[in-house]
Amino acid sequence: MKLTTSFLLISMLLTLFSVEVNSQKDGLLGFSAESAANQLELENQFDELLKAENLDQWMKHLSARPHHVGSPYDKVVVDFVAAKFREWGFETKIERFDVLFPTPKLRSLKMIGPEEFTASLTEPPVPGDLSSTQTEEALPGYNAFSPDGDVTAELVFVNYGIPADYEELEKRGISVEGKIVIAKYQGSWRGIKPKVAAEKGAIGCLIYSDPKDDGYHRGDVYPVGPFKNEHGVQRGSVMDMPFAPGDPLTPGYGATADAVRLEIEDAPTLTKIPVLPISYHDALPLLRALGGAVAPSSWNGGLPITYHIGPGPAIVHLKLEFDWQLKPAYDVIATLKGSTLPDEWVIRGNHHDAWVHGAADPISGLVALMEEARVVGQLARQGQHPKRTMVYCAWGAEEPGLLGSTEWVETHAEELKTKAVAYINTDGTGRGYLGAGGSHTLEKFFNQITHVVQDPQKGVSVFDRRNASEIVRGRKKWQHFELSALGSGSDYSPFFQHLGIASFNLGFGGESSGGEYHTMYDSYELYKRFKDPDFVYGVTLAKVAGRTSLRLANADVLPFEFEHFTNTVDGYVNELTKMADDLRDKSERHNQLLNEGIYELTLDPKESIVLPDPKPEVPFFNFAPIHNGMAQLKKQSKAYASKIKESADSNAQSNELNQLLINVERAMTRDHGLPRRPWYKHHIYAPGFYTGYGVKTLPGVREAIEEGSYVEAQEQIEILGEVLVHLSKQIEKAVQLKN
Amino acid sequence: MKLTTSFLLISMLLTLFSVEVNSQKDGLLGFSAESAANQLELENQFDELLKAENLDQWMKHLSARPHHVGSPYDKVVVDFVAAKFREWGFETKIERFDVLFPTPKLRSLKMIGPEEFTASLTEPPVPGDLSSTQTEEALPGYNAFSPDGDVTAELVFVNYGIPADYEELEKRGISVEGKIVIAKYQGSWRGIKPKVAAEKGAIGCLIYSDPKDDGYHRGDVYPVGPFKNEHGVQRGSVMDMPFAPGDPLTPGYGATADAVRLEIEDAPTLTKIPVLPISYHDALPLLRALGGAVAPSSWNGGLPITYHIGPGPAIVHLKLEFDWQLKPAYDVIATLKGSTLPDEWVIRGNHHDAWVHGAADPISGLVALMEEARVVGQLARQGQHPKRTMVYCAWGAEEPGLLGSTEWVETHAEELKTKAVAYINTDGTGRGYLGAGGSHTLEKFFNQITHVVQDPQKGVSVFDRRNASEIVRGRKKWQHFELSALGSGSDYSPFFQHLGIASFNLGFGGESSGGEYHTMYDSYELYKRFKDPDFVYGVTLAKVAGRTSLRLANADVLPFEFEHFTNTVDGYVNELTKMADDLRDKSERHNQLLNEGIYELTLDPKESIVLPDPKPEVPFFNFAPIHNGMAQLKKQSKAYASKIKESADSNAQSNELNQLLINVERAMTRDHGLPRRPWYKHHIYAPGFYTGYGVKTLPGVREAIEEGSYVEAQEQIEILGEVLVHLSKQIEKAVQLKN
Repeated sequence: MKLTTSFLLISMLLTLFSVEVNSQKDGLLGFSAESAANQLELENQFDELLKAENLDQWMKHLSARPHHVGSPYDKVVVDFVAAKFREWGFETKIERFDVLFPTPKLRSLKMIGPEEFTASLTEPPVPGDLSSTQTEEALPGYNAFSPDGDVTAELVFVNYGIPADYEELEKRGISVEGKIVIAKYQGSWRGIKPKVAAEKGAIGCLIYSDPKDDGYHRGDVYPVGPFKNEHGVQRGSVMDMPFAPGDPLTPGYGATADAVRLEIEDAPTLTKIPVLPISYHDALPLLRALGGAVAPSSWNGGLPITYHIGPGPAIVHLKLEFDWQLKPAYDVIATLKGSTLPDEWVIRGNHHDAWVHGAADPISGLVALMEEARVVGQLARQGQHPKRTMVYCAWGAEEPGLLGSTEWVETHAEELKTKAVAYINTDGTGRGYLGAGGSHTLEKFFNQITHVVQDPQKGVSVFDRRNASEIVRGRKKWQHFELSALGSGSDYSPFFQHLGIASFNLGFGGESSGGEYHTMYDSYELYKRFKDPDFVYGVTLAKVAGRTSLRLANADVLPFEFEHFTNTVDGYVNELTKMADDLRDKSERHNQLLNEGIYELTLDPKESIVLPDPKPEVPFFNFAPIHNGMAQLKKQSKAYASKIKESADSNAQSNELNQLLINVERAMTRDHGLPRRPWYKHHIYAPGFYTGYGVKTLPGVREAIEEGSYVEAQEQIEILGEVLVHLSKQIEKAVQLKN
Repeated sequence: MKLTTSFLLISMLLTLFSVEVNSQKDGLLGFSAESAANQLELENQFDELLKAENLDQWMKHLSARPHHVGSPYDKVVVDFVAAKFREWGFETKIERFDVLFPTPKLRSLKMIGPEEFTASLTEPPVPGDLSSTQTEEALPGYNAFSPDGDVTAELVFVNYGIPADYEELEKRGISVEGKIVIAKYQGSWRGIKPKVAAEKGAIGCLIYSDPKDDGYHRGDVYPVGPFKNEHGVQRGSVMDMPFAPGDPLTPGYGATADAVRLEIEDAPTLTKIPVLPISYHDALPLLRALGGAVAPSSWNGGLPITYHIGPGPAIVHLKLEFDWQLKPAYDVIATLKGSTLPDEWVIRGNHHDAWVHGAADPISGLVALMEEARVVGQLARQGQHPKRTMVYCAWGAEEPGLLGSTEWVETHAEELKTKAVAYINTDGTGRGYLGAGGSHTLEKFFNQITHVVQDPQKGVSVFDRRNASEIVRGRKKWQHFELSALGSGSDYSPFFQHLGIASFNLGFGGESSGGEYHTMYDSYELYKRFKDPDFVYGVTLAKVAGRTSLRLANADVLPFEFEHFTNTVDGYVNELTKMADDLRDKSERHNQLLNEGIYELTLDPKESIVLPDPKPEVPFFNFAPIHNGMAQLKKQSKAYASKIKESADSNAQSNELNQLLINVERAMTRDHGLPRRPWYKHHIYAPGFYTGYGVKTLPGVREAIEEGSYVEAQEQIEILGEVLVHLSKQIEKAVQLKN
């Protein structure tokens, strides 16, 4: 007992010292000196109590059988997780939503000419991986929210199937009208591929994993190594998530038992054409049978063929039928009521549903969250109760399109808008470097955390290790941890982009690459061999996410800060204006080369390349509303920063100030949302309409310019200017309150 | 008859008009107004007389059977070409040299573990290509000047086998000492691969054509398309040509019948370890059997495997025996004596020997040269005799290492130094864009030619088409035709880099890519389907090379000019100083990352990557000698340009001036040559010691810096400074003479 105490003291002193030296000259953001000392002691105890073996045991159990939405084992997972939360002292409930979740009844893909071939559409078991033998309970390879379909047509290879690829097709005079396209995975989120193909008139879409991007050219394939073998198939949703995630039949409101539901045919986010993911084993005969133009060399993958575009002579017959049932999505919601600020909620979440076993995705993140919750619960029972309410969530039905989290957020929107301080998300995680995206209003706060959590392999802070990677890759040395901007792809979207709740998405990776994502092979066996075998990074994630949650829960004044945010947005604004100038130059240059006949001179008369169309002229935009808004934002951010500094020692708790600070992120949203996708209300960050997961910052303006909608671009510039002014005023209120 | 004359007149007027408008405001460089009119009329007649069907007929005949050095059909080719030259009025002789030319007696490549595999080492006939059935007379796949050898060892994959690749191996702690390496073709000239491997301690070397660089990922393979099929093997010399080309047994002097010859074991340019080229069909089982570290992703080729480095477990047994005989190399030398300046020679050459049939390489260039010579002969017989002597050459034994041309140049060195005005080389040629390398003292002259010769597909000048390609590829628009700097790889090297004779290397390409180079499939059949089927670009090459030769032969004052040269060299000097600065920064940065432990933080402890060694510091060099030399060069170049302008209308012929001008290029050479390779005497251009064909400009300084020989770098800076001063004085003499 004595030993432990003195060890704790020494280690606490060391931690304090390191904190002092590394990053916290200004003290712990949001804490008075006294609260800071308490908080650091708490975090130290927290670290001590984390146990890697728990993560291992729970992963083994939770990924023991396939547990997709509506499956028997999903309920086992939910009940297990809920029981644990209860055991740890959380007030726990399971909220059920009934969501549309189609599963395959019939999947058939045949080539009927010029030769015959029937795709296997199966992922056989591999030696040494017992999980991979559990094929009966597993969902096979398919894309959720593909419509039923029975289509036969010539095949066309469209590279990644993103808009730029169709420009290459146009140069060659190739149309996909009435054809079935085959696209490689990657280059965009998968749902973009059938969406763009349908816009271009295709009647079916195949998506395959090419071995260059995701197979033997990445490394040894499973089970020799972790990379995708010839049979691996990436499952995944293809709903129009950049339009809106969540249950397609209850857009904007909770899919409760009694909710009014759309007819399936009226659901706006279902994909328009049948789409099926296949392995490279199944893709090879199809691609080999294609004729027509040879694909541009940048389209080449790793198959031992000359990649042709077609159309044909390969003719394929794709037949898909799904069971269009409602399935239960269970959210486990575990609450630890705040001791002094119960109506300010720090929300922490990770989904539990998987495409198959999901050892990495999502269980690796879920077990870190559980261990974090276990220790938070234990500390609370030992008297270290959080000031604010902490809500730990295990989401259901994330895989088909963030259904569980979105329905919960839509159901509790009004309460969340008032109470939610922040949302901290995790999902699959691995070994290596800390990756963190989030609200830049919390970047300075988060930076302090990255300086005190140690990398388990190198014994330096996770910041130092990540920074080393930036430097060695030739990027600029970081002065502080730089949060990436959040697009989509996990459960933070409804919190962040729909309601304007400051959010994080956290994980480790870079030394645990593989090809198991959404396949039959994302198993405990694979995870233990190739990902984070000793769960040391799982524990480190618990330290990072746990500190983030605990500091937010215990801060005297919420640690929002606006100079990092303003500098970051300033960078986005520069990108925007440069993009407009670059596009204008590019367009002018393109038209000049066309008009002067320069392009024509480079066309090989023996190849069927056609001259491109002239590009529309890009006008000069009036960016003044943005610049004016930024000027105000800079002024108020600076003023707030001075106030923090002045009052660092007298961080008296102020509920009114905290409420104002919570609302700063809300001030970045507008009720009308983004053009043509009102669900996305945040005007600083959104997933790209044509990238999917990939973020578009200042999305209203950026996408309008990118897509050539120049009138809309000017309208969005005005709106963004207003948002920035509104935001500045919100910060100004906080400044005044600090006086 | 009447019709022809008026057609000629109109077309001449059009030509003159276009000349005036396009580029010849200053008049025809080197010609008085009167001589220019005559010359342009001559060129017009020249163009009219060229016949594409001759090229076709001659190619069909000359590539009808394999005709490598010493083969029966090589003599047929030589006698045919010589007879034609005689028929066209040239004084023609066949000069014979007896050169070392090893041919295979035994080639065996087996994998003896962990599984057994015997390489086929054959290129089977393909449907529709009768030439490919003539396997009996053909040399099989081999690398000339590999030593005999019988080696068994573990295999190591070394990517392209260039020095940078061995740095990657060192990072992984992998040595090739005592191993057999397997390298991909490309990335350097082939001879570099066994040279570097031997320096690193390897005992054998395989070189294969990877389908990504040279096979199905380039396009459809032969016979469907022109790209390399799985059996194609690139033959080729691996003598140490960057040390010196030519017969290895008679270094620096002619391999005449009575020459004193080295013993084979004393020949300095033979490769040190046995080396064999193989197809990707034969490489696949070997590469698939490799274990050890996974290769860096940039090393991946197009084979359907995970590329591993090894060493082993693949163990290969390579056994090679060669017939080390002297073979006759026949040079056909056809002379048309100059009417007024017989002792000033314009030399035009293309080789005739091939690895197999050589329809593209070299016959496509040879038939263009022949047609050019035929018409030059015809015009001479019609009274349009060239002022200077024109020497048309068909070289033997180019393929094993420029043997025929080098021995001829070495034999006639003294006469050539006095008489040679310039050497114009061609070799294999195709369809598309004019490619031209050469002496920048003739760039302005050559630029005029590129503006008057029309592209046969587009009806614009070959300059405009090439310029369009530069622009569309995003490079800078050309103000004039930019000659590339000559490295090596064809018969200009002995003229240019050994004797300092201003040279050109000309050809067309860019729309006729294929994989036939040095394989059994470089046939008439392939050429007619995929290269320049109607020989319209062959005729265009005759127009470009013919004009170049005829203008040099007829100019009143030789059209050398030094401002283009000086600007170009100024660019090289900037590259050099920037390279030294970049290397210094890189070295400092590398050492800093190492010392601060930043590198260490990015090493994955589960991978066997070791920390790199610190890099030596790069000193600051005293570049003043070069800058001072350049200042003088600029001054004199400018002075000479003014003189040309002033006296444009009174271009009185001056033999003394012409002789001075000839010697300007000689002034760029030094008797002692480059460090460790005295045969290369030119101090502005050389093939790279570690790139082979690839040029290194200002080679003494550049290579010393690149290779970290910093003391030598400073010595070479002094030498280059002296060369530049010497050169300036030579130009100054010309300036004074022009007064």
